[in-house]
Amino acid sequence: MSYEIDASEWLNTDTPLSLQALRGRVVLVSIFQMLCPGCVRNSLPQAKGLSAIFSRDDLAVIGLHSVFEHHHVMTPAALKVFASEYRLTFPVAIDRPAQTGPIPSTMSQWGVSGTPTLMIFDRDGELALRHLGHLDDLRLGAFLGQLIARRPWQAMMAVDQELSANGGSVCSF
Amino acid sequence: MSYEIDASEWLNTDTPLSLQALRGRVVLVSIFQMLCPGCVRNSLPQAKGLSAIFSRDDLAVIGLHSVFEHHHVMTPAALKVFASEYRLTFPVAIDRPAQTGPIPSTMSQWGVSGTPTLMIFDRDGELALRHLGHLDDLRLGAFLGQLIARRPWQAMMAVDQELSANGGSVCSF
Amino acid sequence: MSYEIDASEWLNTDTPLSLQALRGRVVLVSIFQMLCPGCVRNSLPQAKGLSAIFSRDDLAVIGLHSVFEHHHVMTPAALKVFASEYRLTFPVAIDRPAQTGPIPSTMSQWGVSGTPTLMIFDRDGELALRHLGHLDDLRLGAFLGQLIARRPWQAMMAVDQELSANGGSVCSF
Amino acid sequence: MSYEIDASEWLNTDTPLSLQALRGRVVLVSIFQMLCPGCVRNSLPQAKGLSAIFSRDDLAVIGLHSVFEHHHVMTPAALKVFASEYRLTFPVAIDRPAQTGPIPSTMSQWGVSGTPTLMIFDRDGELALRHLGHLDDLRLGAFLGQLIARRPWQAMMAVDQELSANGGSVCSF
Repeated sequence: MSYEIDASEWLNTDTPLSLQALRGRVVLVSIFQMLCPGCVRNSLPQAKGLSAIFSRDDLAVIGLHSVFEHHHVMTPAALKVFASEYRLTFPVAIDRPAQTGPIPSTMSQWGVSGTPTLMIFDRDGELALRHLGHLDDLRLGAFLGQLIARRPWQAMMAVDQELSANGGSVCSF
Repeated sequence: MSYEIDASEWLNTDTPLSLQALRGRVVLVSIFQMLCPGCVRNSLPQAKGLSAIFSRDDLAVIGLHSVFEHHHVMTPAALKVFASEYRLTFPVAIDRPAQTGPIPSTMSQWGVSGTPTLMIFDRDGELALRHLGHLDDLRLGAFLGQLIARRPWQAMMAVDQELSANGGSVCSF
Repeated sequence: MSYEIDASEWLNTDTPLSLQALRGRVVLVSIFQMLCPGCVRNSLPQAKGLSAIFSRDDLAVIGLHSVFEHHHVMTPAALKVFASEYRLTFPVAIDRPAQTGPIPSTMSQWGVSGTPTLMIFDRDGELALRHLGHLDDLRLGAFLGQLIARRPWQAMMAVDQELSANGGSVCSF
Repeated sequence: MSYEIDASEWLNTDTPLSLQALRGRVVLVSIFQMLCPGCVRNSLPQAKGLSAIFSRDDLAVIGLHSVFEHHHVMTPAALKVFASEYRLTFPVAIDRPAQTGPIPSTMSQWGVSGTPTLMIFDRDGELALRHLGHLDDLRLGAFLGQLIARRPWQAMMAVDQELSANGGSVCSF
């Protein structure tokens, strides 16, 4: 399955982001609703922490506001105030409302069942983790650290070919 | 510089451990004193968490009780009660008391200036981090995850040679 | 100065409350905005805790939603969703919007400068504490406990007269 | 039953304290062991907080080190280091070791079954609360606040008689 974010609007970025274009980096998508207590207490502060710790070349942190209930109050205008008050500085996508039904487009395509949900993609764009609820900092840090340390497949192939060429004497991990 | 633990006694392990013998794994040494508040509040619970999260083949967590003050009450007998009451289950080394002066042997050789101190060695046995004080969970998890994902140099060389031999078509990260 | 809540609407109560009618009880008014991080993190959970600990005959806990910024998104409809998601069960007043200017009526009359603010009234209806920001649990609990233990002036007079009448032999603290 | 502390030694006070002599104040006795994790994590920091919040004329905070296990390492010498490292500044009594058996004298007389235990005495010296385990800050603060607000019986009688004499016109709560 191929994953892409279908957003009606983006905050904190001049141009829309795409998972396709972020290949080569690990991407963490923190799916939330602004009035979800578990998101406010745990997953959004954690996403803020992550975006501060890792280089943007290694990890792209993206918020995805997937409103599946109370649509009348969790509007884009309300989200903008929320993001400002809570000092969210990483890019936030607004999940595109569905033509019919309450579940927005990306949430529906990705089969996400609630918030907070973490979706983590490796450097090759493959889904590496899907987690509903809170994940403790040590465990999440360790998981991301391992993903980040793995070069993407393309890069590995390039190095491997280089290694083949020069007799395997150089490896620049 | 080569690092080794000089212990007068070990808890929670049948045989003494050595960094030399642990080559191939990442090793975290949590240097503490049983009556150091920062150790009790932060670094020892963190070490417990780490030993629960990672496979022992990936990460070896070792406590090092380096008593440099109040030697008359932070005795091996007291440490045993402490380790039992605080449910420490990872191996704990008692840093060998010095012939002269208050600083025990390993602490002195490693140039450790206080507790809590974290010393982290990579799979090749090289010192990767020395940190006095507390390190937050996200950051430490991420650092360890990255170290764990890196195969030791020997293993990489072996795979690289294999890759050279078979044309670079296989890479089993 | 006489304090009264000027609300345009109430949540979690069938009839509007008034400080006047609550004389005889200690009253804690927790002034908040639903998108104020300090309110969400600290003062509202504390108000919930207080309403669970004390008898309603001793302490009345009231939320006062005083919107002085971002009025377009912190609407009554949004507040109702917020109160439901965050499981607020104590009565919440919506501070009446001003005819002119952003500061709502009660906030303006009481001279409140920001959120979160705690206003505590003793059993006689006198203002006992005004506090902008967070107050730690031990200190707030202790302050309320002392206020609660003090009978209102009217009740004390009644008992005192009774004591005078019967020779001081009964004291039912 | 009459409660008194039977101590073999006191820390942080020039003269031994007695509950008898503290009549007129509320007294909180925090019964602990220095290697009891729940005491170190919860009850001792709480006792420190309480001794900072209340006036000493209102609340006397006393630690009682009641060693009922591992006597060989929780010695007076070890306790002194512990109290210094953890910055305990309130008076601490060392519960007098029993002639026979592991349970020290005060713990035995008071029927205390484990640590941490809180024992709170009102201004008249009556036992107001006995609690094994942790009590949350809001609840404990509220309980103490109420006790502190209540004048001791003697003082109330004096005021009541005064009130009787002068017709109930003065009440200086």
